[in-house]
Formats: sequence, structure tokens, C-alpha cells
Amino acid sequence: MPKGQPEAVPNDGLTTRQRRNRPILAVHTGPMKGKSTAAFGMALRAWNQGWSIGVFQFVKSAKWRVGEEAAFRALGESGQGGPVEWHKMGEGWSWSRKQGSEEDHAENAREGWAELKRRFADERHDFYVLDEFTYPLHWGWIDVDDVVSTLRERPGRQHVVITGRNAPEALLEAADLVAEMSKVKHPMDAGQKGQRGIEW
Amino acid sequence: MPKGQPEAVPNDGLTTRQRRNRPILAVHTGPMKGKSTAAFGMALRAWNQGWSIGVFQFVKSAKWRVGEEAAFRALGESGQGGPVEWHKMGEGWSWSRKQGSEEDHAENAREGWAELKRRFADERHDFYVLDEFTYPLHWGWIDVDDVVSTLRERPGRQHVVITGRNAPEALLEAADLVAEMSKVKHPMDAGQKGQRGIEW
Repeated sequence: MPKGQPEAVPNDGLTTRQRRNRPILAVHTGPMKGKSTAAFGMALRAWNQGWSIGVFQFVKSAKWRVGEEAAFRALGESGQGGPVEWHKMGEGWSWSRKQGSEEDHAENAREGWAELKRRFADERHDFYVLDEFTYPLHWGWIDVDDVVSTLRERPGRQHVVITGRNAPEALLEAADLVAEMSKVKHPMDAGQKGQRGIEW
Repeated sequence: MPKGQPEAVPNDGLTTRQRRNRPILAVHTGPMKGKSTAAFGMALRAWNQGWSIGVFQFVKSAKWRVGEEAAFRALGESGQGGPVEWHKMGEGWSWSRKQGSEEDHAENAREGWAELKRRFADERHDFYVLDEFTYPLHWGWIDVDDVVSTLRERPGRQHVVITGRNAPEALLEAADLVAEMSKVKHPMDAGQKGQRGIEW
């Protein structure tokens, strides 16, 4: 996409610079893989700006992001770019002393969201990836209205990318960018199973 | 996506392991941004496998991937993961002595493809990103049939991801995975210009 002019300039009382620098809320949704992959691709650019990156994985098993996690940990330790924190619900949140019941995923998800609210209030990171965060919303574990109002009112310049299927309508409405990954053709259609290095 | 079973097991004479380990040819196409972003996200996983990564940018200006390039150079130098090579047509290919005419993009693109053919024959990398490679194909600068037959016959286990709009039909047919990024909503619609750290 060219860097050029937007199609319309809104009458929102903001200068071009103010509008340009508004923090982004992006949602990557849809049935196909690639939602998180694209979010981590975006995080590479944020890292290169020296921004503080916070990744929060709202999934039970962290098996599927081993490559990305290793890469971002290496980037965080490289002495270049921004610092990186990577937190996984699947192992009990790393900031939490109590590891919580493995069974109680709803409680774990709510605990993750409570921590995110504290971090937004503190402007802790510049770029957040809330990976698979749509699921606890879709399942009713976390209150969607609370999420939307917290995101709308977050202070400063904190960019947020949320991934996962079945994103609630209210979240899509609040988002600045909604991307949907469509499958046109996938090797699993031809009977190929996932392979290391490609799928995880 | 679960790691589980494919829907159909083809009668192709391959064992599950052989089928699983077939090298992937992926094409990320469609009108929206995110095609390259997702390709670089995939490359993070490949890097974590210790695979040799080769990135080839078939664009005149390399302005738009500065974040990804810095991140992959840092990863390549981290002492973990696989080695990374990053080549840009925009600056004259780095392996080429002659910098070529800046004007002659078609010739530069063909020179890039000639080098790629040598590298496929040598099995030089495990994971290739041919960024914006669809354009020289679409514009007729590089012969599509040559590309398709070279990719179909590439030896060993060399994964290839090709990005860009207007991917030729013959390339899509040859691909194992075709992903299309659709725009649902984009901040430029609301008059917001691209911003550093987010768009590049």
C-alpha cells in the first residue's frame, strides 16, 4: 500500500499528526490460520521502533507459538529494538504467584484480563498482542463491554492487536483495523498434516 | 487449528511422514496489506527450527520492510536459530557486482530470478520469502512457466512463500497454500495516514 493520502479527511477536530499517531486497535479474525502470524509480523515493526512489546496468550496450551516466542525472546535480548515480555495463560500467568487450577480456564482468563487493565492504566507497553483473546470473550468468561470500554479509554499511545475467531461484534465496532484471513487453498485439504517449522 | 487429522488421506503413494514433510509453496495474495507481514511471521517459526532463511525483496523501494529486516538481521546474528540472508532488488542485488541501471527494473527482477534458480538448484536455503514477487510475473518481466516448473521441480526440502497482488493463475495452481487477506476495516478509511511502527 502506498504511503499516500487517505481517501477522506474526516472532520474530527484532529490535526493530521494527531490522527496519524492515534493508537491502533486491530482485530485479526476469520476462520483461517495466519491471524496470529500476521500479528507477530506487525510486532516485528513495533520492536524495531524500540517499543515495549507485551504478548499475552489466552490459550490453554502454548504449544503453537514456540517459534514466535523463541524469536521474540531472542529479539528482546538482542540489545537492539524494544523490550519484550511474553506471558502465557497455559502455564499460569508468569506474574502470578498462585498457579491456579489448571481446570479453571475461565478464572485464568479473567485474571489475565485484570492484569491487562492494570497495564493499560499504567501505560506499561507500547504494543500488545492479545493472542486468541476472542475466545474468552466469545465464551462469556470476560465481559465484552468492560473490554471495549477499557480499550476505548486506554490512555496514551498503546497499540493493541487482538487475534482469534468469533470476535464479538462490539469489539469489531471499536476496532480501527479488522483483517480477515481467508483460506483459498490449504495443504491439509490435500491430506497433508501440519509440519514443524511451518505450522508451529 | 488443531494438529489433528486431515479431512482426506489421498491415494498418492506417500507415507504420512513423506506427505507431512513435503516442502510447502505458499502464495499470500489479495488486495489488503498483511501478505508480507504474515510471510515474515511464518519465517519466525522457520528461523526457530534453525533453518536457513533467504528473503528476496522484488520491489524498487525497500522502505516498507525496515522493521522486519532489522528484526531478521538481529535474529540471524543472535547465535540462536537459523542464519538469515536478506537481499533487496531496490539497492541492486547484494550478490551482484554490477549495480545495474536503476531504471531497468525488469532486468533487475530477471537477475533476481536467475539467482533464485541457482539457489534452488543448490538447495541453498530451507525457507524462502519472495516478497512482492508476483509483480514482475504479472508485468511479464519474468516468465511464469519457468517459475512454475522451477518451483515444481525444486529439489530437497525448500519451503517458499511468495507475496503480492495479482498472482498469476498458474502460480496459484502450483501452490500448496493460498491465503488471501481481506480488508474488513482499515484506519485509512477513517482518514488516518500510515504510522511508523505500525505500517513500516
